[in-house]
Amino acid sequence: MSRFWSDLVHDLEPYVPGEQPRMSDLVKLNTNENPFAPSPHVLDAIHAEASETLRLYPDPQATALREALAAYHDVRLEQVFVGNGSDEVLAHAFAALLKHDAPLLFPDITYSFYPVYCRLFGIAYETVPLDDAMRIRISDYRRRAGGIILANPNAPTGIALSRQEITALLDEHPNLPVVIDEAYVDFGAETAVPLAASHPNLLVVHTMSKSRSLAGLRVGYAIGDAALIEALTRVKDSFNSYPLGRPAQAGAIAALEDEAYFQQSRTFVINSRERLMQGLAGLGFEVLPSSANFVFARHPARGGDELAAALRQHAVLVRHFPAPRIFDYLRITVGTDMQTDRLITALSSALIPETTAP
Amino acid sequence: MSRFWSDLVHDLEPYVPGEQPRMSDLVKLNTNENPFAPSPHVLDAIHAEASETLRLYPDPQATALREALAAYHDVRLEQVFVGNGSDEVLAHAFAALLKHDAPLLFPDITYSFYPVYCRLFGIAYETVPLDDAMRIRISDYRRRAGGIILANPNAPTGIALSRQEITALLDEHPNLPVVIDEAYVDFGAETAVPLAASHPNLLVVHTMSKSRSLAGLRVGYAIGDAALIEALTRVKDSFNSYPLGRPAQAGAIAALEDEAYFQQSRTFVINSRERLMQGLAGLGFEVLPSSANFVFARHPARGGDELAAALRQHAVLVRHFPAPRIFDYLRITVGTDMQTDRLITALSSALIPETTAP
Repeated sequence: MSRFWSDLVHDLEPYVPGEQPRMSDLVKLNTNENPFAPSPHVLDAIHAEASETLRLYPDPQATALREALAAYHDVRLEQVFVGNGSDEVLAHAFAALLKHDAPLLFPDITYSFYPVYCRLFGIAYETVPLDDAMRIRISDYRRRAGGIILANPNAPTGIALSRQEITALLDEHPNLPVVIDEAYVDFGAETAVPLAASHPNLLVVHTMSKSRSLAGLRVGYAIGDAALIEALTRVKDSFNSYPLGRPAQAGAIAALEDEAYFQQSRTFVINSRERLMQGLAGLGFEVLPSSANFVFARHPARGGDELAAALRQHAVLVRHFPAPRIFDYLRITVGTDMQTDRLITALSSALIPETTAP
Repeated sequence: MSRFWSDLVHDLEPYVPGEQPRMSDLVKLNTNENPFAPSPHVLDAIHAEASETLRLYPDPQATALREALAAYHDVRLEQVFVGNGSDEVLAHAFAALLKHDAPLLFPDITYSFYPVYCRLFGIAYETVPLDDAMRIRISDYRRRAGGIILANPNAPTGIALSRQEITALLDEHPNLPVVIDEAYVDFGAETAVPLAASHPNLLVVHTMSKSRSLAGLRVGYAIGDAALIEALTRVKDSFNSYPLGRPAQAGAIAALEDEAYFQQSRTFVINSRERLMQGLAGLGFEVLPSSANFVFARHPARGGDELAAALRQHAVLVRHFPAPRIFDYLRITVGTDMQTDRLITALSSALIPETTAP
């Protein structure tokens, strides 16, 4: 508290990201990072940018990167916006598209940054409960609203809506901006990007942090109708003209160019997810059907907080959310097979009833 | 215009950065970039970050970089905030510290992003005219205010206030947050950073884009009382947890470690500025006394727009602002001696009276 603060600051409840500890031999399954390295072409591209030209500003419009994204997703340049990670893209979307008199709607269980943005920008919102199976039911969104944002697949559940369901949602709310946050879409869900051509109310947000293994580079983007992109651009150019540095723009372009690596990487993660889910099921966990690079699971005998603490003793980090409805769950990132083995072993030992311990 | 836009978007007048054209053989003196390359240690550090670890999120608190900045400026870690270029740092400062009932004050002629931030965040502001010599007169700020922001050296004039004047300003307004934007301070002005210890109302903003030759990397920072830094951090963590990627954090640390290179680079720019100012004076320009890596100059016989257009014909880019009081001026970045020679030659030819042309 300080007399120099703007009023706004007192009311904020900032987002708390997962830990980034510096422990050795850590099995880090808490922030949904990709266990694969980025494409070697990306690393080469960043090497090349570590040069004399760093003295120069980057292209503030990131035109080359946006052209590459437009070609990749078969949309026009004016339909592409890029930002400093999808969190920044989402922040601009909240400010530019989701602040209206009627409340913004999103699920009660979803990415916990959404209510944080609402407080920052003074956006009224209402949460819509997931059903008992922890699924988004689009019929529950038939109510007075100023906009809708859904993560698809949802986080931290990992459960995806089909493109057919997203289409129905868009068609039911033609006068509302609808943002679909597809941070995890490449791990098994259907993207809504092809719907942008026919739905001027749709904005789709992607990140290169997950399926492109570039969490450390900070690149996200949005695709939608040119009028929606213009709104984001106007806010961005009133905030920071150059959010993406030269290494980020060059690295992101190179990532898009290495399609074979991308397909290999995401297939690897999908296969590892199946192995992880089987391992957890074998220990008696109830595991939600995930289309993401993480799984959300609970054990009938032990609380999520207790298990997360026990795993930590084994240098295995997972994420636990101290929130209603999901307190029992663990969110576990899909890692390498070796990491999965370490996790399962640590969980097995944590689950041994204390009465049978020596 | 779109029915999906938040009301805010309609009212924005985004900042227009200087051009970043892709012309060959261009003498680019329009965006105050440093003609020197970054330190080779910076390039090595970025090389090293182009590795497998890019799959991992960066440290959201950027602790190692903030520690390096704290050591460099002899302040505590809690007094240091970092962001994606000083534009992002300024944006957070406007939102977190400069929105109050009474108007924010800044000069009529200054960094043109300030009124843009005010519109974005709904901040009331009043501009205070520079005096006839285009100087900031701190006694003119004795009026009702919610906060004060000054660029020092000011842009685009290049004229600096002394630390004594900044001290007087802080002492006259102990209950107002005062932001000193020192983007260009390393080229010859006195930094206000040592005043932070005794003035809890002071926030000093720096960038690595200019004197560290890292415009392409996007690193800025602020130093001030811990309570002011906490306000920035709360807003940042409600907006984007990870604004600085791994290459940016590593590169910025390496830049701070190469003090010899930094001193050599800024001395070079200061010497080149003198040469540029002499060249312009020789052509009859009136040149304001600059403490920055640019000069602001006008010619008694020709308009600024006309000269900028003529220079463009010679592939020399400078900045002209179509704004009251400064319409006659050109803002010219300090370049290499070769660039200065190209500029002076081009100006000489532009200044030849048309009646004497063959």
